Amino acid sequence: MTISLYHASVPVFLRGLDNLEAVLRKAQAHAAEKQLDPAALLSARLAPDMFDLTRQVQSACDAAKAGTARLAGQTPPSFADTETTFAELFERIAKTVAFIKSVPASDIDGHEDRVVTLKMRGGEVSFAPVPYLLSFVLPNFYFHLTTAYGVMRHYGVQLGKLDYLGTLPPPADWI
Amino acid sequence: MTISLYHASVPVFLRGLDNLEAVLRKAQAHAAEKQLDPAALLSARLAPDMFDLTRQVQSACDAAKAGTARLAGQTPPSFADTETTFAELFERIAKTVAFIKSVPASDIDGHEDRVVTLKMRGGEVSFAPVPYLLSFVLPNFYFHLTTAYGVMRHYGVQLGKLDYLGTLPPPADWI
Repeated sequence: MTISLYHASVPVFLRGLDNLEAVLRKAQAHAAEKQLDPAALLSARLAPDMFDLTRQVQSACDAAKAGTARLAGQTPPSFADTETTFAELFERIAKTVAFIKSVPASDIDGHEDRVVTLKMRGGEVSFAPVPYLLSFVLPNFYFHLTTAYGVMRHYGVQLGKLDYLGTLPPPADWI
Repeated sequence: MTISLYHASVPVFLRGLDNLEAVLRKAQAHAAEKQLDPAALLSARLAPDMFDLTRQVQSACDAAKAGTARLAGQTPPSFADTETTFAELFERIAKTVAFIKSVPASDIDGHEDRVVTLKMRGGEVSFAPVPYLLSFVLPNFYFHLTTAYGVMRHYGVQLGKLDYLGTLPPPADWI
């Protein structure tokens, strides 16, 4: 039994971003209901040297955007990190989703010889496509989704694990 | 380009658990160095109604154990949640790794018609194997790895993203 590289990446990103948006909408409603400054929630973080909620959302978007682009042999498009409101973060998610959906499966599947090279702190790191997705992109994507969730939970937003996971089972046409 | 169901699950779990163990060893060393009660760290959590660090580790192990077992058509073995020390959590991880390694690829791959049924709060939920892995097992596994990391970071353990991700690129024989 096999999974195409496209199905192991693009639909997974779309589902994760959809769940992230739903979680953020609950946080936005929570701030409105409790008359909290939304900016206080968006700049909250779990440790002084971790990213705040806004940057966790941007990073989740970027993990999906860069993962999709590099698996398709493209240079990822650059999106400026200028969001300061929930509404702007929803736009960021929508822009990311639109990019991901624009990449055809045929640009990702069937390119076994592609090499993905990243600049990391210690120098350049090269991956074959499957290890790139499984050892870097997916763990990183879920890191930012989960940490965004953790910040919101830590700051009192009422959420459950199913808000993070989304509807189960997924729709039959999902992959 | 395709990924076998086995390669998208078992090596991913083994790598994630290996990274989790390394992160916990840093937390253990941090507690010793700062003369903190290790039990205080192991019972720390991000919100009163979230699992503590110990249970995040148990849950990461269980996500990997149950995911592997169900993909192989087995009932997951039951491990009692009795750990109260770092040493016992390392044993839990080792026991989980041993179980996962005991499952041959041929029990997971080549069983397209298998249906995975879970009892969830709203009733029984059934999945085909690939959506089970991609919509439930992997997001849930990374949720617990990341939340364990987040608890440790929140409580002052010095860690970086690469502790969570592990060595990059992964070894050439990884998958």
